[in-house]
Amino acid sequence: MSSNSEIDALIDLMAKLPGLGPRSARRAVLHLIRKRALLLTPLSDAMQQVAATARECLNCGNVGTTDICDICNSEDRATGELCVVEDVADLWAMERAGVFKGRYHVLGGTLSALDGVGPDDLRIPRLRDRVTAENITEVILALNATVDGQTTAHYIADQLEGQVRLTSLAQGVPIGGELDYLDDGTITAALRARKEL
Amino acid sequence: MSSNSEIDALIDLMAKLPGLGPRSARRAVLHLIRKRALLLTPLSDAMQQVAATARECLNCGNVGTTDICDICNSEDRATGELCVVEDVADLWAMERAGVFKGRYHVLGGTLSALDGVGPDDLRIPRLRDRVTAENITEVILALNATVDGQTTAHYIADQLEGQVRLTSLAQGVPIGGELDYLDDGTITAALRARKEL
Ligand SMILES: [Zn+2]
Ligand SMILES: [Zn+2]
Repeated sequence: MSSNSEIDALIDLMAKLPGLGPRSARRAVLHLIRKRALLLTPLSDAMQQVAATARECLNCGNVGTTDICDICNSEDRATGELCVVEDVADLWAMERAGVFKGRYHVLGGTLSALDGVGPDDLRIPRLRDRVTAENITEVILALNATVDGQTTAHYIADQLEGQVRLTSLAQGVPIGGELDYLDDGTITAALRARKEL
Repeated sequence: MSSNSEIDALIDLMAKLPGLGPRSARRAVLHLIRKRALLLTPLSDAMQQVAATARECLNCGNVGTTDICDICNSEDRATGELCVVEDVADLWAMERAGVFKGRYHVLGGTLSALDGVGPDDLRIPRLRDRVTAENITEVILALNATVDGQTTAHYIADQLEGQVRLTSLAQGVPIGGELDYLDDGTITAALRARKEL
């Protein structure tokens, strides 16, 4: 490819990133080599840092650098509200909107008969435990408006019925839409207009 | 963004890569964290390796890990033919086609009155030196079919007229097209059908 094995190895690894194909990986590597001091070395260092420190929060599944993440650790967030999301990218999207002040629970996916994903493959048992242990009064099901997302929301609602107030994001989430694609205002509107299940 | 400064720092750096915006950088970083052993650590190591070893060939401008690149060093490539390209990505595209057996000269851009890029800002003086020093008999101007690319080709042709055979890639390069976007067959056809200037 580049007639150089170290550079080819880097291109091959870059091409494995979501959103980068072989051609954009080659462009990115040439850009990195040109910006060695400004970008290549800092990026390598930052990756090493994250590789050494990143871990999943044992409580909620968020990604951070401590066993219990900053959000779970913050006393300011103990509102009794728990926002259930499919993955960490959705948690970040909620945080960017800046409107939710409670804590999160990251399922790590959705139920899927097709892919053989059952409740125990997700953080659903742990969610039940948290509702009791953390005196949760409201569970906001902020799952994607997809078939699997809504199936999962109904399953969780069935499990927790009668124990807590159950709500879901409502107005503003387009059919088939995914949280991480929405702008902050839409997320804010959807949270404010949340409805009882 | 992620409520964690190390992870945010990595996202910010990733977002500076060509082809990745903030959203795809976040997705890429989550993917890297999930694939720590398989992707994140190897990628960091490969970047460190390239940062420590990559350099521009002093002769042709290609990127490699030695002062003089493998192509310039190879006696098999001493055909008397020199292929002039705008940048290293174009050299790689020519090499993928596998049809050219001579050596390269990477200009490092094109002449541009608008951007104030003159002949001395590119490797044009060095091209003149190489034509003499390496007993070059043919210079193939494989520049992009853009206005700046063709202006640069004409400038170089003027400079070298009477000293060597001057050719350019011909059939197959679409108007406004860039080498790095073409398939190997098109590049091969264009090289085979090259015409006198
Ligand atoms: Zn947590
Ligand atoms: Zn070279």
